[in-house]
Amino acid sequence: MKRVLVTGATGFVGRHCLLPLIERGYEVHALSRAAGRPLSVPGVQWHGLDLLRDTGRLESLLADLRCSHLLHLAWFTEPGKYWTAPENLQWVSGSLRLVDAFAGTEGRRLVVAGSCAEVDWASSVVSDGMVLSCPRTLYGWSKLSLYLVLAAYASRVSLSLGWGRLFFMYGPHEHPARLVPNVATALLKKSPAPCSHGRQVRDFLFVHDVADALTALLDSTVEGPVNIVSGQTHTVAQVVHQIASLLRGEHLIRWGAVPTSPDEPVQLVGEARRLREEIHWSPRFSLAEGIAQTVSWWQEQLQPKAA
Amino acid sequence: MKRVLVTGATGFVGRHCLLPLIERGYEVHALSRAAGRPLSVPGVQWHGLDLLRDTGRLESLLADLRCSHLLHLAWFTEPGKYWTAPENLQWVSGSLRLVDAFAGTEGRRLVVAGSCAEVDWASSVVSDGMVLSCPRTLYGWSKLSLYLVLAAYASRVSLSLGWGRLFFMYGPHEHPARLVPNVATALLKKSPAPCSHGRQVRDFLFVHDVADALTALLDSTVEGPVNIVSGQTHTVAQVVHQIASLLRGEHLIRWGAVPTSPDEPVQLVGEARRLREEIHWSPRFSLAEGIAQTVSWWQEQLQPKAA
Repeated sequence: MKRVLVTGATGFVGRHCLLPLIERGYEVHALSRAAGRPLSVPGVQWHGLDLLRDTGRLESLLADLRCSHLLHLAWFTEPGKYWTAPENLQWVSGSLRLVDAFAGTEGRRLVVAGSCAEVDWASSVVSDGMVLSCPRTLYGWSKLSLYLVLAAYASRVSLSLGWGRLFFMYGPHEHPARLVPNVATALLKKSPAPCSHGRQVRDFLFVHDVADALTALLDSTVEGPVNIVSGQTHTVAQVVHQIASLLRGEHLIRWGAVPTSPDEPVQLVGEARRLREEIHWSPRFSLAEGIAQTVSWWQEQLQPKAA
Repeated sequence: MKRVLVTGATGFVGRHCLLPLIERGYEVHALSRAAGRPLSVPGVQWHGLDLLRDTGRLESLLADLRCSHLLHLAWFTEPGKYWTAPENLQWVSGSLRLVDAFAGTEGRRLVVAGSCAEVDWASSVVSDGMVLSCPRTLYGWSKLSLYLVLAAYASRVSLSLGWGRLFFMYGPHEHPARLVPNVATALLKKSPAPCSHGRQVRDFLFVHDVADALTALLDSTVEGPVNIVSGQTHTVAQVVHQIASLLRGEHLIRWGAVPTSPDEPVQLVGEARRLREEIHWSPRFSLAEGIAQTVSWWQEQLQPKAA
């Protein structure tokens, strides 16, 4: 019996993982700060508690459930703040307590969300195996440190640890302040969409693919860092054009209106080697398909609800 | 007013830091798991709580005291176990909570005990600045990860962080299972003293000097890792000879009776550059003086107490 606890289950990535986990035969237990059933995914059992504050209740829950698997996605992710927020420290500490409690029950296999922010952005392509590196932000150092200590701990207590390193994601339910929602909602309202120069090269992955890759990683025995990427690179401008051409809004894009930081890397992409060769996973959605679904979703959100 | 909280204050290093802190003009608050006054150092105020378990009380204490300084020495250090003990994870997590709570009050300056175990032992001399490295043990990875995340956090919240990297220490109150106590007590009892081959090159520092260097570091504004070392190197055999010649016990040393691990580095020493040039500190005790004091102390311990 595969029984998984999902943290961050109502978040952008977490909410999309629930159905794929059910489909892979997991009994799914989801954490949420709110009580009740925040999302109506059939078969998911919800547990309302605050991972950072309700530490006693978290330990009791883990002791009761004796989950075989843990998918740990929860973190402080407020756009514009999470890079430097002191809260990062609490998330490292809370994540360590969570994993320690998980290992103390029947826990065997866990996957934790890493980030492309945990590596040195000076490298042209982030290899899966790149570990000892110099992140630029407190968020990056926090994720890196968490990985280093968990990897040593996991090998000591015979826990199997996969580290799903997330890059650039888009899709339904993304925070409205981020690139794709920002441009899509502006154009849907026929308003100007301020953008940066758009020449940044990134690996964009549709959130349904991100969720599917993470659950495939969880379901495997692959250990250590695995880049969760499409293996395709696009410029920010290509993504914006894709949205604009669907919504006939090219004339509303204000290139260069948003300044870029000199710290921001020109290229930030990751190799998809382990995902392809060891997990035998590849994306189901092209950029065009993903953007089309995302734009439709935002279109629905902006439509006045029928009475 | 300089007010310091000392964790691990009853431990091998911590207990020797209390008087030097008083002498440097600190109001000294010491944590101890036991209630009462575990050590009778004049001027020290004791607070009985468990750093890992009494988290609410720790936060209240920090809020009450509003310490300007923190000297964080507490860790799981049971000989033979601490290298690989799963408890290391709890100490990383507990240390993060402690520092976060300290920063949330009036905290300005902290020094945390690092270790020569947090760096790659393949290098011949550990430089102060060596950071991104490959430790060999869970203990080493735990200390390294703690440093990485705390350094990023400290610079974000304007906290001044010194990292005192401890090497090989000896002196009164050392755990009896360790090298110097082991040899000294065997020879004092006229028993054979099993030793390894003795050719390992190390930097040994008398614990009074370790404590003095740590308090000098705390009292400075020097940030980042600082090796707490003598800058002199000795072989294990030289240390053993020093004890044996004081106790006329050369004939009782059993060289080669204790196997060494193939993992154990031949040489593990650190440069003393920052300690000398930035903190203007040098040891007060030679190896001969330190060993003489240590042997006398063990002699007293083994004497039958007067009625």
